[in-house]
Amino acid sequence: MKEHQLKMKTRILLTIGDYNGIGPEIILKTFKNKTITGKYYLTVIAPPEVLSYYSRKYKIKLFADDFDIIPINTGKIKIAPGKLNAHAGFTAGTAIKTAVDLCMAGEYDAIVTAPVNKKSLNLGGFNFKGHTEMLTALSGVKDSCMVMLSDVLNIAFATTHPPVKKIASLITPSFLASKFRICTEVLKNLGRITGEIGVLGLNPHAGDEGQIGDEEQKIIIPAINRANKKNGKIKFSGPFSPDAFFATKKYRNFAFTFAMYHDQGFIPFKMLAGYKGTNFTAGLPFVRTSPDHGTAFDIAGKNTASPVSLIEAVKWADKLTRNRKK
Amino acid sequence: MKEHQLKMKTRILLTIGDYNGIGPEIILKTFKNKTITGKYYLTVIAPPEVLSYYSRKYKIKLFADDFDIIPINTGKIKIAPGKLNAHAGFTAGTAIKTAVDLCMAGEYDAIVTAPVNKKSLNLGGFNFKGHTEMLTALSGVKDSCMVMLSDVLNIAFATTHPPVKKIASLITPSFLASKFRICTEVLKNLGRITGEIGVLGLNPHAGDEGQIGDEEQKIIIPAINRANKKNGKIKFSGPFSPDAFFATKKYRNFAFTFAMYHDQGFIPFKMLAGYKGTNFTAGLPFVRTSPDHGTAFDIAGKNTASPVSLIEAVKWADKLTRNRKK
Repeated sequence: MKEHQLKMKTRILLTIGDYNGIGPEIILKTFKNKTITGKYYLTVIAPPEVLSYYSRKYKIKLFADDFDIIPINTGKIKIAPGKLNAHAGFTAGTAIKTAVDLCMAGEYDAIVTAPVNKKSLNLGGFNFKGHTEMLTALSGVKDSCMVMLSDVLNIAFATTHPPVKKIASLITPSFLASKFRICTEVLKNLGRITGEIGVLGLNPHAGDEGQIGDEEQKIIIPAINRANKKNGKIKFSGPFSPDAFFATKKYRNFAFTFAMYHDQGFIPFKMLAGYKGTNFTAGLPFVRTSPDHGTAFDIAGKNTASPVSLIEAVKWADKLTRNRKK
Repeated sequence: MKEHQLKMKTRILLTIGDYNGIGPEIILKTFKNKTITGKYYLTVIAPPEVLSYYSRKYKIKLFADDFDIIPINTGKIKIAPGKLNAHAGFTAGTAIKTAVDLCMAGEYDAIVTAPVNKKSLNLGGFNFKGHTEMLTALSGVKDSCMVMLSDVLNIAFATTHPPVKKIASLITPSFLASKFRICTEVLKNLGRITGEIGVLGLNPHAGDEGQIGDEEQKIIIPAINRANKKNGKIKFSGPFSPDAFFATKKYRNFAFTFAMYHDQGFIPFKMLAGYKGTNFTAGLPFVRTSPDHGTAFDIAGKNTASPVSLIEAVKWADKLTRNRKK
């Protein structure tokens, strides 16, 4: 690839994910996708054996023009699609660590991660709950924010995947202040200088003026007011009654929606965007996106996985990086 | 109305609700609706002054053929649309109490309730969180279950309106056993002898096999297994990952869905059914339905309220009563 092309194209790293999941398969299929090839400077971080194993298995011919590879050597590879394996977790984690180092050194702009299995990641020696927590820790920032992106609506999340019994205790003034600060970055990443963010309530009917829980009155409304004092051109509105907000399509009035917990945002997001959504970790020193699905062990090794969500993640990684550089 | 007609038609009581809300308005509009009049034996419980006030105000002429009235005298009425008022709460509560007594005595089959305001109900001396709790207590049953009905999907709820911080502590083995028992009645009320009920998980990804909270493994799965041992022809399935369940339209495979908490069920319900849904309180000795909205103080007295949801509630009250009697 020529030097001037390199400078114009967004430099995107793809991490291989769990090699017993569908990650390698959807990466290969993405590299063969005509809406992708040549548009970005794509580099996969993987043990070369993993790519050659799946390209032979699925008869996907790879051309050097389509992508670059940063080979990692994690020891002897034994691929067994669909199986939980410490070495697969170790390899997945090593790829992520390598990617963060390269982005932090300024050599790449963005990371698109293929799915990992949390159990195998932990067995492999990386004690993180998932990608988001691992990337946040490795890049040395204090906080990050999960954002789901699509053509229909975008939703940022206060909390990511806690059990329901823990949600309310996480929603504190400093917690929301940090997430709201990252949300102003999200707006810029979405290419906007001004904008309005629609904040959902935590409780049914957004607490019904304090009749159902007190978090709206005591924590969320004050946090919104404080954030609005700080940010002139960016406005936080709400808290809105979550069911009415989606039923009346109020989200259309906002640059994005801010949900308090997983199912409050993911139920409407997946109903409206299907499985084409992209997961974006905002607040990191680099752009990170990923497809909206897991390792899918049940269909791994069957050549039936769709690269659609990974392709979307690559396109978003490019778009977000370009907006960020403006 | 002739005796033989009476016997064939479902005997439905309408309670007036908060007379400062939109209740009287939508009741009058329902009585004038041609899809309703003459089909059911409709009786409204209200102070006559309230009906005559709104019928004069909105120029809605009433004919004795359209409905009956059971007058209640709750003292001097001062109507002030949109205002919170103890006497309005006392009147609303008295209408509900009268309706329960008449149903318990076997004189009526069903109650359709116009909306109450919880604050005015409490100010009026009825210390209940809402209709559901009041009807459950007055009819002497141990438990009831909130069910939302529509043409598109039906959802029963484990919990009704607790704040998010309390949800998990409510989901206990005996709590679920009681709700599941009522769910088998719901199936009959929906006109089915056999059927499958889709149970959602409490936590994101239905707990991801115990990785996100333990309620699915410790409480929900055992409760499902116990319920399935008891009920030969009725099957409980799940727990399902809530976001995937709605995104993939899995609810279509089930007689109804069982959600763990308000927004988990109401967000998808209102997205799919809009505001035409009917709230059904299952487990009572009589049928009780209500429209899917509140007193709407903001538009009370303006003659702009739509009776659509109340009309649906009347139609469902008839349908559920007929199935119950089969």
